Amino acid sequence: MIIDCHGHYTTAPPALEQWRKRQIAGISDPSLMPARSDLTITDDQLRESIEVNQLALMKKRGIDLVIFSPRASFMAHHIGDFAVSSAWAAICNELCFRITQLFPRHFAGAAMLPQSPGVDPRTCIPELDKCVNEYGFVGINLNPDPSGGHWTSPPLSDRHWYPLYERMVEHDIPAMIHVSTSCNACFHTTGAHYLNADTTAFMQCLTSTLFKDFPTLRFLIPHGGGAVPYHWGRFRGLAQDMKTPPLTEHLLKNIFFDTCVYHQPGIDLLTRVMPVENILFGSEMIGAVRGIDPETGYGYDDTKRYIEQTPHLTAAARQMVYETNARRVFPRLDAALSARHD
Amino acid sequence: MIIDCHGHYTTAPPALEQWRKRQIAGISDPSLMPARSDLTITDDQLRESIEVNQLALMKKRGIDLVIFSPRASFMAHHIGDFAVSSAWAAICNELCFRITQLFPRHFAGAAMLPQSPGVDPRTCIPELDKCVNEYGFVGINLNPDPSGGHWTSPPLSDRHWYPLYERMVEHDIPAMIHVSTSCNACFHTTGAHYLNADTTAFMQCLTSTLFKDFPTLRFLIPHGGGAVPYHWGRFRGLAQDMKTPPLTEHLLKNIFFDTCVYHQPGIDLLTRVMPVENILFGSEMIGAVRGIDPETGYGYDDTKRYIEQTPHLTAAARQMVYETNARRVFPRLDAALSARHD
Repeated sequence: MIIDCHGHYTTAPPALEQWRKRQIAGISDPSLMPARSDLTITDDQLRESIEVNQLALMKKRGIDLVIFSPRASFMAHHIGDFAVSSAWAAICNELCFRITQLFPRHFAGAAMLPQSPGVDPRTCIPELDKCVNEYGFVGINLNPDPSGGHWTSPPLSDRHWYPLYERMVEHDIPAMIHVSTSCNACFHTTGAHYLNADTTAFMQCLTSTLFKDFPTLRFLIPHGGGAVPYHWGRFRGLAQDMKTPPLTEHLLKNIFFDTCVYHQPGIDLLTRVMPVENILFGSEMIGAVRGIDPETGYGYDDTKRYIEQTPHLTAAARQMVYETNARRVFPRLDAALSARHD
Repeated sequence: MIIDCHGHYTTAPPALEQWRKRQIAGISDPSLMPARSDLTITDDQLRESIEVNQLALMKKRGIDLVIFSPRASFMAHHIGDFAVSSAWAAICNELCFRITQLFPRHFAGAAMLPQSPGVDPRTCIPELDKCVNEYGFVGINLNPDPSGGHWTSPPLSDRHWYPLYERMVEHDIPAMIHVSTSCNACFHTTGAHYLNADTTAFMQCLTSTLFKDFPTLRFLIPHGGGAVPYHWGRFRGLAQDMKTPPLTEHLLKNIFFDTCVYHQPGIDLLTRVMPVENILFGSEMIGAVRGIDPETGYGYDDTKRYIEQTPHLTAAARQMVYETNARRVFPRLDAALSARHD
């Protein structure tokens, strides 16, 4: 079984974006604020948005199941206040839930949270609980920078975030650490902000004792860990200077990396440097990079091809990357799959 | 000849830091502000600070010459105003100049600029001119984020920076794009902020037509280009989606990467992915990572060893990385070396 741990609903029917635009207009003029009931998307529309997109690619590429969350760049937690984020997250999560109901063999849900800059993350817990308890979601996306590129929240190691971690541990769900659109002109969203956030999050953990406080907390750092594997010697050296325990012990029981690295040399490096236990197959298909690589003739985001071709994974190791690791990091997914004998 | 394009004066006599502390105290209490003449460092002190440190390592590792600039993390442009940065840059540059005079065969100078958040970069030109015209410096370090992790300046592609670029082009000097200490708690200085800035700068160039306006402008992106080579497929794909010219044409005539990547797999990736013309040997020795890698028994920052061992460089290509590329990117260095028949 091949599990893609990193998929977003980037192909939602246009009505969703239209509703969001009206919501944003409603922030400055409350008379324009739409009701949740103003958004109608039929099951047929949902089905079609998936069948010709993600599902078609999954069949073509041989991917069985995607851990599916709302579109990352559309989370835009910096827009409006908690009420705005709350209504928006509820709608986006519900759509992903409906996708998991329409295609139960192919999609498992992960929640976006109704984060808002300066607002206590504790306020996200009701949405999180609903997504886990009622929707059967298996993970969440946690934005370490709800300000969208201004980095005004405390580091992930700060107690600010602890109420969320406590609930994650209770539910036994991991978080993918994923920022959203940058509203800082310095940072291109998918070319800089995403990768920077990955590196930043890793370093925030490295300089802390977060995983002493939460030994079972698990973070999935997307986009192949940002700059981390490429600079693994730097991080090992910094950790050594700081006299932390070795990184395998200090961080790698709790931090995992996906394979959203869009060329063969990158995946070769990732699989050479990182313990195979820490690598989860992911593609973020129909995401940041949608073109065909002229050097290969295949989609940049067809990361399964790179996994197949890296010289650093045995067949058994590949199986860990494709399935076993995801089932270990997402135990609720494992339970659901086991219950249906997958 | 082996030229290390990335060295900072990290081993200055303690009197320098003491003066800086007094200067910082003087920001809030002008009666404490030291005069420049309050700092006395003798040639013997300078000589000793180099001989047992950089020069000893250069001899041990077989490095002939270092392009040497003030300590990056101490630039701290976010502290004080332009007058504070100006006095501090003048002192730091002068010390580097004296090092180049004491060890003319081993060090060439690169200037820090008296940048200050919110201040027109044009104000840096007099210091730049002095360093080039009077000190014979061959390059500058340009901080894309003088705020120290708050990223309040416009992107490098903005006209805000153009007066500096015009002067760089006149002098035919490149800039290393190098941030300084982060005062944003989210970003660890050497583990996150430095690498993020490298990636950010590259993407700022990618999304602009900067090098159409300045076809001979040259940027050296340190730390192996941050996350860029590891995610080269992502950047190629993003550029393709944006319909820029191919990156070789759009950016790689103007952007170069150093080899400050502190393990073999990273250098293997860099030398596999990037055209050899774009790679300049650098180590940032006695910098961010000073320990011995237990996996090799050698310093993490002994990057020459990785260059020697990568399978992706022929002897001729290695020579480009060690010397030819640096002499092309730093024509004033080439002229100085040629004048003395090096």
